[in-house]
Amino acid sequence: MTYYKEPIIIEPIGWVRSEHRDCKAVPHNGWGRDIQSEIDLLPDMEPAAREIQPGNLIWVLTWLHLAERQVRRVYPRGDLSRPQKGVFSTRSPARPNPIGLSLVEVLEVSENSIRVKGLEVVDGTPVLDIKSYQSEMGR
Amino acid sequence: MTYYKEPIIIEPIGWVRSEHRDCKAVPHNGWGRDIQSEIDLLPDMEPAAREIQPGNLIWVLTWLHLAERQVRRVYPRGDLSRPQKGVFSTRSPARPNPIGLSLVEVLEVSENSIRVKGLEVVDGTPVLDIKSYQSEMGR
Repeated sequence: MTYYKEPIIIEPIGWVRSEHRDCKAVPHNGWGRDIQSEIDLLPDMEPAAREIQPGNLIWVLTWLHLAERQVRRVYPRGDLSRPQKGVFSTRSPARPNPIGLSLVEVLEVSENSIRVKGLEVVDGTPVLDIKSYQSEMGR
Repeated sequence: MTYYKEPIIIEPIGWVRSEHRDCKAVPHNGWGRDIQSEIDLLPDMEPAAREIQPGNLIWVLTWLHLAERQVRRVYPRGDLSRPQKGVFSTRSPARPNPIGLSLVEVLEVSENSIRVKGLEVVDGTPVLDIKSYQSEMGR
């Protein structure tokens, strides 16, 4: 067994444009809510995004650049009355590699921009990847 | 709006230990199949992983270090008889930022190591993040 130990460097494929400038103002668990935002893709991502259509459900992976990376234990949902949990058993943005995982609905597609519902991140957040949602696998 | 443009550098939280040394030998869509592997976590991740228990379903995000990052269009499932698709409408490992997203079942937990079922990656693959699966949201 050989662990792969080269540096992992990620270039965003795009960024989120949203009304939400402040983390605290971003609704949590936005899926099913009406929060709307745009994913602005880099122009050379067009061939990769061409089949994305309104009505599609897609996974959007983001880099939660404002998240705290040193935190290992949190109060789930900020509820101080419950015991702390390790971040890997939560969906807290605070974690060693703060990659956001959001299932969102595509509302509109225009050149290099995808309007989506349910992406609960602040304005300017880097987008790392987009994947199709495979409902038959629950993923 | 201000896009976040600082470099994004990721340090793995651990690595996958598996019998599969060769991509081509790794079963696809392994969820529900019997492929088993170990996630070896770095020792300082223990507080973050402490609540993970056998029977849990967890998301495992990996860095698919053997994947081709320049590819934008693929034949879905390698089927040359169907039209090509943009990688963002597929689950192909080939994509600009090859982050693997796997829903896996925890089989066994020991110090700094988690045995799981359904993680379809090769031996040595870096693990970037682990998240709880929230079935009520389909995610």
